Parts: sequence; C-alpha cells; structure tokens
Amino acid sequence: MTDDNTISILGLGPMGRALATAALAAGHPTVVWNRTPDRAAPLVERGAVLAPTAADALGRAPVTVCCLLDHDAVRAALADVPDGSDGTLVNLSSGHAGAARETRAWADRRGLRYLDGAILTPAPTIGTPAATILYSGPRATFERHRPALAAFGGTALHLGEEIGTAAAYEMALLDLFTMSVGGLTHAFALAAAEGIPPASFARFAAGIGTLLTDMTGRVAGQLAADDFSSPVNTIASAGSAIAHVRAAAAAHGLDDEPLGAVGRIVDRAVAAGHGADGYARLARFLADTRSVPAST
Amino acid sequence: MTDDNTISILGLGPMGRALATAALAAGHPTVVWNRTPDRAAPLVERGAVLAPTAADALGRAPVTVCCLLDHDAVRAALADVPDGSDGTLVNLSSGHAGAARETRAWADRRGLRYLDGAILTPAPTIGTPAATILYSGPRATFERHRPALAAFGGTALHLGEEIGTAAAYEMALLDLFTMSVGGLTHAFALAAAEGIPPASFARFAAGIGTLLTDMTGRVAGQLAADDFSSPVNTIASAGSAIAHVRAAAAAHGLDDEPLGAVGRIVDRAVAAGHGADGYARLARFLADTRSVPAST
Ligand SMILES: NC(=O)c1ccc[n+]([C@@H]2O[C@H](COP(=O)([O-])OP(=O)(O)OC[C@H]3O[C@@H](n4cnc5c(N)ncnc54)[C@H](OP(=O)(O)O)[C@@H]3O)[C@@H](O)[C@H]2O)c1
Ligand SMILES: NC(=O)c1ccc[n+]([C@@H]2O[C@H](COP(=O)([O-])OP(=O)(O)OC[C@H]3O[C@@H](n4cnc5c(N)ncnc54)[C@H](OP(=O)(O)O)[C@@H]3O)[C@@H](O)[C@H]2O)c1
Repeated sequence: MTDDNTISILGLGPMGRALATAALAAGHPTVVWNRTPDRAAPLVERGAVLAPTAADALGRAPVTVCCLLDHDAVRAALADVPDGSDGTLVNLSSGHAGAARETRAWADRRGLRYLDGAILTPAPTIGTPAATILYSGPRATFERHRPALAAFGGTALHLGEEIGTAAAYEMALLDLFTMSVGGLTHAFALAAAEGIPPASFARFAAGIGTLLTDMTGRVAGQLAADDFSSPVNTIASAGSAIAHVRAAAAAHGLDDEPLGAVGRIVDRAVAAGHGADGYARLARFLADTRSVPAST
Repeated sequence: MTDDNTISILGLGPMGRALATAALAAGHPTVVWNRTPDRAAPLVERGAVLAPTAADALGRAPVTVCCLLDHDAVRAALADVPDGSDGTLVNLSSGHAGAARETRAWADRRGLRYLDGAILTPAPTIGTPAATILYSGPRATFERHRPALAAFGGTALHLGEEIGTAAAYEMALLDLFTMSVGGLTHAFALAAAEGIPPASFARFAAGIGTLLTDMTGRVAGQLAADDFSSPVNTIASAGSAIAHVRAAAAAHGLDDEPLGAVGRIVDRAVAAGHGADGYARLARFLADTRSVPAST
C-alpha cells in the first residue's frame, strides 16, 4: 500500500466536502462516504468513488480523514469496523481532549493508527494557503501521512504526541470565538435598539477586534509573569462598564444573561480583592476557583 | 469670558488625570476638583488650581469637563449648583442613553448648557493622536468649545444633537468589549486547565481579533441587507461548538455560565428555525424578541 496515495474522506458536511474537493484537486484518488449518500453526487461527478459504508472507505486507503459532527458520530459511523483492521484514522471532527482520548482508545482496540486534529479556519480556506490544521498523536504517523495531508493546504502543525493537545487548543480557541460571536451579535442588537444603523456601529466596532488582539498579547504576558499590577484597565472598571451596559440592555428589554454571567465572575474577583488588577487576573482567578481538580 | 480658555476638570481618576494633564500640556489654565482632594497634588505641582467644590470649579471656566464614575456621581458632585448658573458641562462619565437624558434635564433645570460624551480609548491615549471621543448635544455648544476639547487629542466626533447618541454608541461598544474580555480570560483559563502555556495559546488566539474585525463587517452587511442566507458559518455550527466547549469546561470544573447563556440564545434561535442562517441573524433575533418595546 506504500505507493497508494488514495485518501478516504468520511463526512460530507461543508467541511468534509471542502476536504474531499481539495484531495481531488491535489490529484489524490479519493474515496468518500457520508451517512446521507446523496451529498456525494457532485464529488462523484468530479471523480470521487462513493463507498457503501464507512468501514469500506477505511479499507480502501492508507489514510482515512474523518470530519463528522463530533466524536460520537465517528464511533457510530465506524461501529462495524472489525478488530485487527489495518488503517490510519485522522479525525478532524471537533471535540474536547477527553473525547480525543476516548476515540484513541476505541481505535487502539481495533488496531487502527490514530491522529486527532482540529481545523482552525473555515471551509473556504481548505486547499488554500489560509488553512490551518493542528494535529496531535504519534509523530511517525503524522510524518508518514504528511504528504497526503498537504492536500488540505496552508499550515499543518504537529503539536505533540499527547493525543488531546490539538483538541485542547481547539476548545480554548472556540471558547474565545463563540463568546466573541455572542458579544458581537448582542452589541449589534443593542445598537439597533438604540436606533444606530449596522454600518454606523460597525465603523467603530471594527476596532474592538484590534483591541482584542492587543489584549491577547498583554494577558499572556501578565499570566506568564504572574504579575497583574499596573494594568491599562482594571477589573473594577470592567465591572462598572458591565453595570452600565446591563442597565442599557434592561432599558430595552434585551436578554443580557451572557454579560450578566461575565459580571458575576468580575464581581467575585473584585470581592476577592482583585479589583485593581488587570484583566489577566480574571483568567488566573477562574483557573484557581475551579470546582474540581485538573483532570488532564 | 470669551477670551478665557480655562478648562475645569471634575474627577481625577485615571481618566480625569489624563484629561487634566492634557489640558495643562496644551497650555490651558486648568482648574481641577476631586471628591478626594489629595489626588490633585501632582497636577497642582504642574500648575493646576484646586477648586474647593465642584460648583466652584464650574464657576471658574467657560467649559467644565466631568469624568466621574457615572452620572449619579456627576449629579451628586454638583448637587449644590444653584438654578440660573452660567456654564457649560461636558460630561464624559460613562452611562447609558437614558442616564444622559436625565443629566441633560438636570442641567436644563439649572440653566447649564450640556454636552454628553464618551471616551472610546484608554487613558494613555488622551492628548495623543490615538484618542477618540464621541460627543452629542447642541452643535453650537460643541463648535464653541471644540478648540478647548482639542486639548484631549485625536479624534473628536460630534454625532448629532440627540443627547443620548454618544452614550448609545459607548454602551454597544462596551457590550462587545466586555464580552470579549470575558471570552478571552475564560479561554486562557481553559487553556491553562489543559496545560497550554499562555504564550502558546496567545500565538493562535491573536488571530481571533482579526476574525472578529472581519465578522463585524460581515454581520453589518447581512443586517443592512436583511439577508442571513449563504453564511460562512451557521448558527447551528456555533451551537455545536458551544456544546463541545462547555463539555471541556465542565471536565475541568470551570465556571462556564457566560458561554452557557450565549448557548441558550443560540438554542432559541435554532428552535425558531434559524439554524442554517449566519450569525447576524442572532442580532436580529435578539432585537426581535425583546421583552419590552423600544424605548428610545
Ligand atoms: N464548517 C467549518 O467551517 C468548520 C471549521 C472548523 C471545524 N469544523 C468541524 O468539522 C466538523 C464537520 O463540520 P461541518 O461544517 O462539515 O458540518 P457538521 O454539521 O458539523 O457535520 C455534518 C456531518 O456530520 C455527519 N453526521 C452527523 N451526525 C452523524 C451520525 N450520528 N453518524 C454519522 N454521520 C453523522 C453528517 O452526515 P449527514 O450528511 O448524513 O447529516 C455530515 O457529514 C465539525 O466537527 C466541525 O466542528 C468545521
Ligand atoms: N480609564 C479609562 O481608560 C476609561 C476609558 C473610557 C471611559 N472611561 C470612563 O471615564 C470615567 C472615569 O473613569 P476613571 O478610569 O477615571 O475612574 P473611575 O473609577 O471610573 O472614576 C473615579 C472617579 O469618580 C469619582 N467618584 C466616584 N464616585 C463618586 C461620587 N459619588 N461623587 C463624586 N465623585 C465620585 C472618584 O472620586 P474619588 O477619587 O474621590 O474616589 C474619581 O474621581 C468612567 O465613567 C469611565 O467609564 C474611562
């Protein structure tokens, strides 16, 4: 099988289709499978082979890339793969580090080599220089399939052998990303309630992205130095800003539970004596006040 | 008083001190007042005059710039200003549009001219080209004092005569900003719980600021066009990302109430049939499902 550069792709949602399209574009014989087979039609037209089952697709290529909703879907799709199978599974479905460890154990029982991965960029970037995909698991497995994975474009980073690392990065990044989506859409709703047109608000709001990038570096520096003094902005001032915004949201009957929950964390940090510290202290405070010990 | 270019500054927190320092640096005779007078000492050394009361400071200059904790503090500090006083109050203390309207009515009763404003940039920017301050209220008042306000540097924008406009922008921007702070610090806490060093996480997280700026423009465009179809990312995918992150946070005993609250809004939007729409739909959905009618 060493000369076989076939790639199997399991899952044909927006991301799976992008991966299969990139594999075809890079000249790989491409096998596809999807629970709902209809979705494969445009890819079959371009030369992909539709496999009848996920297990069949896995048997047809030295490397099988999985991109389903989550890890449960991966194990469900491959439930009938027999023990002692040969093959390599590269799972790019989202999930947390614990899920990656479970899927690795599941793959081990079947004799499959396993890499876990996380795609950091949206589907339209796949196959272009803008794609970024993180991998973790055995380095030898990564190196062996690196030429095939290069079909997806951009940057492919192997973060280490610990199987959960790529997933851990993905979770922390999705945390920031989805909170940003929540904040951005709520801010547009508040602006609308105040009669501010979307484009007028966007003119000023675009700068917050730049502030967020600046803050990211500053927070990392404060955490690394374990020094939260002499901040540009204090936690207390964030608390008073949140109180102002919540009053504005309440005046318009807008759901403000997300910001209310941020405010409760800020209030607890102030009550613990951290009001004059910089924001980075909130990260330390959250980590220090976890309700269970680390379970990595 | 027309040739008098004195500026009075009420409030000597970090921002009030920056404003007073900039006024002095621009060559204005500068009167300062603070509830806790000790804070004035370094400014008095540089030539500022310390007024014994806020009302006294107001009487000593054609324009008085207020920068206290909030609007309640402004009205408390100036409670003994008599009716029929002469003077102009430019209030840069944070507050929502309703608070600006109340303070304007309060100023009207005393015969004071009133501008409301919002400082969008941190204290170290004041007096530099990086400062941005929004104003609203009578244009004639703004134009008359524009030369004095120029001492604060950067961009001074008059947004219109409606007194609440600057505050409305400030609230929507603070909404986005404080949610970003909440998301960023939570993400660093989750990364720490997963054993990821701050600098390693920051390397990838810095890009989310750029994504946020891109999303801001895209969301504004979708809202303006009232078209949420053909999204780069769907609301349903945000929902599944949130579920993954919450599972990761729960595994580490991390408070995940902010993201949980964002998730409930996403779930309601999906239940209302908007799962395949782009994120901008969430802003429209929040605005459409307010619990009271608009009160602007
Ligand atoms: N789209 C992006 O921009 C992006 C970016 C980064 C990461 N990701 C990650 O990539 C993965 C795939 O995302 P996506 O956007 O392509 O779509 P998705 O909606 O997350 O997943 C859809 C795929 O999962 C399959 N599926 C769902 N439940 C299943 C089950 N129980 N058994 C078998 N198959 C099942 C679907 O099959 P059917 O067609 O039969 O429903 C479809 O192939 C997700 O984990 C996502 O978080 C996506
Ligand atoms: N700092 C920034 O980067 C920034 C950026 C944009 C906007 N702002 C806004 O600017 C305003 C001032 O901010 P800040 O950072 O300088 O500090 P702050 O902590 O928000 O306000 C401190 C000032 O308010 C005074 N004060 C509080 N309660 C008072 C009361 N009941 N009566 C009289 N005075 C009272 C304090 O007097 P004492 O000294 O006696 O306590 C001090 O002068 C706030 O509305 C803030 O949101 C600040």
